Amino acid sequence: MQSTSMKRRVIGIDISSDRTTLAVVDVRGNIIAQSYFVTSSYPDINEFTARLTEEVIALAEANGGYENIRSLGISCPSASIVSGCIENPPNLPWKGVIPLQAMLRDRLGLAVAISNDAHVAAMGEKIYGSAHGLKNFIVICMGVGLGSCFYSNGISHEGTSGYAGEIGHTCVIDHGRKCGCGMEGCLEAYVGANGIVQTAYELMAESGKPSLMRDIEHLTPRIIKECCDKGDELAIEVYRRTGYLFGIGLATYASIVNPEAIILTGGIAHAGDWLIEPTQESFEQHVFHNMRGKVKLLVTELDDHERDVLGASALAWEVPEYSLFK
Amino acid sequence: MQSTSMKRRVIGIDISSDRTTLAVVDVRGNIIAQSYFVTSSYPDINEFTARLTEEVIALAEANGGYENIRSLGISCPSASIVSGCIENPPNLPWKGVIPLQAMLRDRLGLAVAISNDAHVAAMGEKIYGSAHGLKNFIVICMGVGLGSCFYSNGISHEGTSGYAGEIGHTCVIDHGRKCGCGMEGCLEAYVGANGIVQTAYELMAESGKPSLMRDIEHLTPRIIKECCDKGDELAIEVYRRTGYLFGIGLATYASIVNPEAIILTGGIAHAGDWLIEPTQESFEQHVFHNMRGKVKLLVTELDDHERDVLGASALAWEVPEYSLFK
Repeated sequence: MQSTSMKRRVIGIDISSDRTTLAVVDVRGNIIAQSYFVTSSYPDINEFTARLTEEVIALAEANGGYENIRSLGISCPSASIVSGCIENPPNLPWKGVIPLQAMLRDRLGLAVAISNDAHVAAMGEKIYGSAHGLKNFIVICMGVGLGSCFYSNGISHEGTSGYAGEIGHTCVIDHGRKCGCGMEGCLEAYVGANGIVQTAYELMAESGKPSLMRDIEHLTPRIIKECCDKGDELAIEVYRRTGYLFGIGLATYASIVNPEAIILTGGIAHAGDWLIEPTQESFEQHVFHNMRGKVKLLVTELDDHERDVLGASALAWEVPEYSLFK
Repeated sequence: MQSTSMKRRVIGIDISSDRTTLAVVDVRGNIIAQSYFVTSSYPDINEFTARLTEEVIALAEANGGYENIRSLGISCPSASIVSGCIENPPNLPWKGVIPLQAMLRDRLGLAVAISNDAHVAAMGEKIYGSAHGLKNFIVICMGVGLGSCFYSNGISHEGTSGYAGEIGHTCVIDHGRKCGCGMEGCLEAYVGANGIVQTAYELMAESGKPSLMRDIEHLTPRIIKECCDKGDELAIEVYRRTGYLFGIGLATYASIVNPEAIILTGGIAHAGDWLIEPTQESFEQHVFHNMRGKVKLLVTELDDHERDVLGASALAWEVPEYSLFK
């Protein structure tokens, strides 16, 4: 009988609103094989779990055997490492509280760890990216949502219920824009993908200036960025306003955490200097004076998808192999 | 020769703008003896250090002997546990960067630890107060300044340079009130002692209502609180506005840290329900929805002075006895 200590591989799983990616990863962080399927094809959580279970088994069998898989690590928005559940996810097809950790553990007989996408991204940055060797740092995940995670004394700060880092839902303008979460003036309502597009429409309405954006039916942050690249003044102003408020939010975060660096990840982070320069300027203007000029603002050097699946695999290595018997 | 392991006492020192308190403390946290002197009598840092050195020796000699003192722990505003220095303190008589840890270590031949008042207060609450047994919590120090400290996974989060927790200098109103730190709209400019008084003057100017506050030459938060106790509507409104903004600031802090509890300490915290009720209401309105109703907002049960000197003594026990030879 094979000793469990011989199990030299884990499976990292990244569940996002568009697709669910799986990767078999070895102890050195080499991706042996990957597969994926479309998340939204499974609006029923039981069907999703059944498909994910099949995919885990098939990927393992095709790559060294299921018996060599030590554990699973899962990255998923709105997941809590404390409860092992996905809780009221706004951007996924499923509602309520979903005990995915227990569901997969029971179906597969493997130890499973689950945490939210921002916490897994931070783990990926810590092991494979710009946060390597840092003890106190912040990772911001910029997409439709605005998530984050910070490390304290070299350890991920999860908080009491695993929800630490909810910078997206902190109030940056009192009685400001309505946010998807129900509150007003949340940072995400200005710096999330939809918020950036809303700023563009507001600016076009209040300004008489011509703009390439006026001819485009469905604006996205990427299209606005392309308009910036072509010198469009209104588009540049969109990212200037976004960066101003983002800088305030990051300055508040940094004044509380006093990090060595803030690492920006996710699609919006790749808007480049159109976003980063006004953000940096506003950040320095609003951060506690003893930290001014001392916090590095970085854009990730990793591919976001690869980092998330590697981060999830790192989470899998951290879970005790026998945790399934608890 | 006496073994160092016999040294069963430490001295905790609390330096504040009004007075400097020293206490000889045993391993069980019993205060054996205390003394104090007026901080502002020593506007020269070298004279202050000379007086503090004399006071340490005299207090030790009178209470079991200097040879039984293991180490010193110091609580001081604007001090960094990382650098061992007091750095640009706005509310103390001395300017610039003062290496107090090294100065006292060299004069006394004892191991010395120094940290800022909020971090020491949090240590005091963790060991002796409401934070006993908690792993993730926030302590807020409310006085002229608005300081704080939080614990992450049971350990004090100091940050990269020892300045974590600067909630007082986070922007709560964009382009708001000028703060003493040079920035605009800082939380401290509304919730610090001077900010509360300024709100009172602003309210009296904009309202035609009668108020007991109009007859008082030098308003303080305590006097405003006493006017509240007498049913003064404008005074009640002062704390209502203060609590509204304070609730936003605490909600941001909690959404980032996801604590079990927030413990309020310092003079302003004792304004009681006039402050706490509007703060709680605004907090619940602005905190991330998955944390709503789950964060305890508490006022310290300890005497602030005693806690700070006990917290400083706890810091003294944490410093390695031989750190002076490093």
